[in-house]
Amino acid sequence: MSDHRSGLTVGTTLPGLSRADVDRAELRLAPRILRTPVIRSDQLDAQCGARLWLKAENLQRGGSFKVRGALLAVEELAAAGSRGVVAQSTGNHAIAVALAARAHALPTLIVLPSDAPPAKVGRIREAGARVVFAGTTLAERVAAVEELRELHGYDVVDPYENPHVVAGQGTATAELLEQAAAEGVRLDTVVVPVGGGSALAGACLAASGHGAAVVGAEPEAVPAFTAALGAGEPVTVGVGLTIADGLRPDRIGALPFALAALVAEQVLTISEEAIADGMRAALLVARLLVEPAAATALAGALEYASGPGRGTDIGVLLSGGNVEPALVAAVLADPADLAHRAVAS
Amino acid sequence: MSDHRSGLTVGTTLPGLSRADVDRAELRLAPRILRTPVIRSDQLDAQCGARLWLKAENLQRGGSFKVRGALLAVEELAAAGSRGVVAQSTGNHAIAVALAARAHALPTLIVLPSDAPPAKVGRIREAGARVVFAGTTLAERVAAVEELRELHGYDVVDPYENPHVVAGQGTATAELLEQAAAEGVRLDTVVVPVGGGSALAGACLAASGHGAAVVGAEPEAVPAFTAALGAGEPVTVGVGLTIADGLRPDRIGALPFALAALVAEQVLTISEEAIADGMRAALLVARLLVEPAAATALAGALEYASGPGRGTDIGVLLSGGNVEPALVAAVLADPADLAHRAVAS
Repeated sequence: MSDHRSGLTVGTTLPGLSRADVDRAELRLAPRILRTPVIRSDQLDAQCGARLWLKAENLQRGGSFKVRGALLAVEELAAAGSRGVVAQSTGNHAIAVALAARAHALPTLIVLPSDAPPAKVGRIREAGARVVFAGTTLAERVAAVEELRELHGYDVVDPYENPHVVAGQGTATAELLEQAAAEGVRLDTVVVPVGGGSALAGACLAASGHGAAVVGAEPEAVPAFTAALGAGEPVTVGVGLTIADGLRPDRIGALPFALAALVAEQVLTISEEAIADGMRAALLVARLLVEPAAATALAGALEYASGPGRGTDIGVLLSGGNVEPALVAAVLADPADLAHRAVAS
Repeated sequence: MSDHRSGLTVGTTLPGLSRADVDRAELRLAPRILRTPVIRSDQLDAQCGARLWLKAENLQRGGSFKVRGALLAVEELAAAGSRGVVAQSTGNHAIAVALAARAHALPTLIVLPSDAPPAKVGRIREAGARVVFAGTTLAERVAAVEELRELHGYDVVDPYENPHVVAGQGTATAELLEQAAAEGVRLDTVVVPVGGGSALAGACLAASGHGAAVVGAEPEAVPAFTAALGAGEPVTVGVGLTIADGLRPDRIGALPFALAALVAEQVLTISEEAIADGMRAALLVARLLVEPAAATALAGALEYASGPGRGTDIGVLLSGGNVEPALVAAVLADPADLAHRAVAS
């Protein structure tokens, strides 16, 4: 856990990137993404004692905020004459890369864990990409990407280390801060889900100079950021089971860690039960279908808000909504069944 | 079915009400309701061949657009020195009246069908109203309201005949037209669900002078507006079973009928299967939890869009999101189970 606040002044240079990169990304992306709404819920506010500002990126093109970074990164590669792209992902970065590459007519290879949710696999194939399955760990996927890169001469779109991806993801938080400001509110905190770390890194960039504290939320089962903070560098954590398929990377990226270690206020670890509760709250109270990764951030915000001196206005990045119908039904109908739906990190 | 288009000029006087009443309602309601977002979905657009503009009133305070009309009507009564209010409803008008009356500290009695969804009953009681159950038909509820009115000296907030309610409901469609216009789009059509008729009547008022065609969508099982158009006046239709609990009134109101017969372009009757498909599409494609009444409008829009010469931009009033978790689970998991969840009209 870090006690830093993101009180950096405007223009502070963060590792390789700055808030200005997010501003540029926002201008370039504006015509091609949806400015998703920020949702308020009187009932959720009453439940946690703060005002929550839910950035509904589950309503984004491709069903998650990841289209932001992928569009920016793929555009750079296309402009540089790329022959094709290859990417590994737990699902949402893959959908985003496939959609972005289709817009530039670039051939696309996607490496997924063998147990990726069918809904995500289907959307990737609909976007015209070829899917390759490789084990269940990040290391297995990264090795497969390297092989395919050499074989085809394609360019890799890394989901965590690519600075265009990180700057692009930061635009989601930048919009959230702006949308709250348009209602006369300066957010005290933004809570974002942590998997490989691109959402967190983007939020750290977006919040620099703003003064909002950045808080990460990751599954208790895959505490990759918590472990990295303890070790002082990214480390691979043991395999854990989680329904948050989007947060299963067992190691935080080096670029995200460098940014987050400097800026993030703290990281919360969220139990599987709380993640499921977050999905139910999003669905039945806020009436938004979110995937477990987004529910992890909501659960984190509900927990954070109940602590002392936590400020009154808390932004939450609802990162995506690509979720299996059967998982939604299980969350609604039979919590006991959820354990069977967890995937290995 | 009517062939009228809503090509009335600005200022045309409709039965007892005009577009100006909606404009006044919009100004009065603005500080007290949410300006809900209009959601777009590339996938739904591709599916139906038109651009759908989904007015997400499932995200409204109280979980439905009905808070608009209730706030306006209850404010009038409070200003006139009311001792308390009584209302009958299938659920959403009741939640809305209870919330509005609480804001004015007025005692509230709500008459519901005996098989009203527990989620709606719970929200009404949370808002501090007393609930009375009366049969399952509109006539039984109306009789109970009359009794309670005489007994307590309370004022009735009718869900369909009260002109403040109708003008208030019209603000949802007025906002939808404005929000599309802000994106440079003039909607060709708005599709709204039809139960007692207040959404339809409000849409007819809001669209007058705009040129958008108003299309109603009602369950095949409770074709109250279709039957009224055939008879030339509101008639009570036979009892039918539908999952769209919000659209179960078996007779359209006189005021809504007078407006809609003059303005609405047509009414679509939607099968139970299509309503369930609409709920699934809203949830899994647009990622919004809507109740079956709203899904009826979405199903109507998807059907309407596929017809010839239907214009390219179609607004849809997603009227509410107050739905039982078990119904959502059933829609996702086991369509065959849905028949057991239908309620009598």
